[in-house]
Amino acid sequence: MKTAPFFNKMAVIGVGLIGASLSLAMKKKGLVDTVVGIGRGLENLETAKAMGAIDTLTQEVEVGVLDADLVVAAVPVQGIAGVLETAAPYIKKGAIVTDVGSVKLSVIEQVEPLLPKGAYFVPAHPVAGTENSGAAAAFAGLFDGRKCILTPTDGTDEDALDSVRRLWESVGSEVVLMDAGIHDRVFAAVSHLPHVIAYTLVNTVADADVIKSEVLKYTAGGFKDFTRIASSSPEMWRDVCVLNKDQIVQMIDGFLNRLEMLKDLIDGDKEGALFDEFAKAKKIRDSLSPGHAHEGD
Amino acid sequence: MKTAPFFNKMAVIGVGLIGASLSLAMKKKGLVDTVVGIGRGLENLETAKAMGAIDTLTQEVEVGVLDADLVVAAVPVQGIAGVLETAAPYIKKGAIVTDVGSVKLSVIEQVEPLLPKGAYFVPAHPVAGTENSGAAAAFAGLFDGRKCILTPTDGTDEDALDSVRRLWESVGSEVVLMDAGIHDRVFAAVSHLPHVIAYTLVNTVADADVIKSEVLKYTAGGFKDFTRIASSSPEMWRDVCVLNKDQIVQMIDGFLNRLEMLKDLIDGDKEGALFDEFAKAKKIRDSLSPGHAHEGD
Repeated sequence: MKTAPFFNKMAVIGVGLIGASLSLAMKKKGLVDTVVGIGRGLENLETAKAMGAIDTLTQEVEVGVLDADLVVAAVPVQGIAGVLETAAPYIKKGAIVTDVGSVKLSVIEQVEPLLPKGAYFVPAHPVAGTENSGAAAAFAGLFDGRKCILTPTDGTDEDALDSVRRLWESVGSEVVLMDAGIHDRVFAAVSHLPHVIAYTLVNTVADADVIKSEVLKYTAGGFKDFTRIASSSPEMWRDVCVLNKDQIVQMIDGFLNRLEMLKDLIDGDKEGALFDEFAKAKKIRDSLSPGHAHEGD
Repeated sequence: MKTAPFFNKMAVIGVGLIGASLSLAMKKKGLVDTVVGIGRGLENLETAKAMGAIDTLTQEVEVGVLDADLVVAAVPVQGIAGVLETAAPYIKKGAIVTDVGSVKLSVIEQVEPLLPKGAYFVPAHPVAGTENSGAAAAFAGLFDGRKCILTPTDGTDEDALDSVRRLWESVGSEVVLMDAGIHDRVFAAVSHLPHVIAYTLVNTVADADVIKSEVLKYTAGGFKDFTRIASSSPEMWRDVCVLNKDQIVQMIDGFLNRLEMLKDLIDGDKEGALFDEFAKAKKIRDSLSPGHAHEGD
């Protein structure tokens, strides 16, 4: 690992789970002197300040980003371009601008044209999170041992990329460089589709006719584990679905076809093929390394 | 809780996770004197014996059930009727026969006609398990704090029902009486559908084109939690799907419709309706009491 970077002033736009945790982690590692928290909700900002995640707070993006040498857009992914458009005229020359969005291609397409010359954008996706939201849920160890995907483009400044890379490594993450389009396709599969499925499953089960009031009493541990991610922020996942629409719709189609096929196997008493399908999934699932509790994405 | 029952000799047909755990729990609580383990796999039986789950072992159902005053069919659910048909002529008068199958209506329809007069069948479904199988995975505390559903019929003997009820209460379970048809519908929703979905999701993601070899590297904690139940026994879940076909197919249809609807919302940029659907699921999921780690069903 290379030496840690250092920032005199960081502006965090959106002081939620990710923004506040990043700030806590950077402060703990001595990577930053002053952190300005920028957000709409005063109560949340005050929580973040009381936790020591931010030093000063403001609801004005234009004020908060002044003189910052690192600007982190940590708002829900559909809001990233908007806050950076507001911030753009006030970002100082030479500042690094980064984000934490879990969709990359559309964020890059929106953000790159609107930043001023001399502000260096490095698109990032820390693969970390829990099903909880808000500064109150933040903790310094959130990124420790997790992956952080950076998706530089042809226009990305090499030094800025290197600084952001070392920043994430310094808070314990394993940095992976990836093409933004590949990123969006991979995460449509391993993260976006599972969230869509979990939300759908919970609503399907809760609405199962005859037994509405009864059915949820019998949800066992398997169901609870399975649907934990349905407690994730609806705002965040709406944004992800809108911004990564094409990849997600394609993954849903693949899933629908496969489930239709499985339904036909069940309906047609094709016991051998059914066993093979389940055994195949078990083999793949067993091959994954054990997950940590309370990880998300 | 009423007084614990006591059995001189119990025959456990199928000494897997559930059968061996029940035996360990009953021995720990002093509910049984001698346990005969009956199974096809000698190695598994010897493991169970070495663990103290069973006292003697045999591969012959006809031999194992002789003189038992409690016979527990703990084989995969499609095998229950078969082993009890073999056992029937050898079951002693007055014996209680029970099972642990996670589908009840078809098991009852198969088993009730084939047992001899004077053998008392009590259909049971302990809602417990892990994603592991076999005697080696068994432990005495498996049923502690879990639900056990009993689905008596018009023909069920009241005293036998009471004994089986006290047996499950004595090993720590909360016993619930339920109509077998309702049981099968409830568990199609909260357990069978989620397993089918988890298997399907793992196979869909693993087969996602462009990135087959890459994609599974990025599976984060959310995906791992979500798909843990896809490590469950393919044999067991094939059986459940075959025996509870109608209810499961109906639940899959409901899920398919809901996912198609959600896909249309995404595809049509219906952000408000998408948010509402996710927020509804989050509210329901948040209302569930926290699950224990390593529960299953």
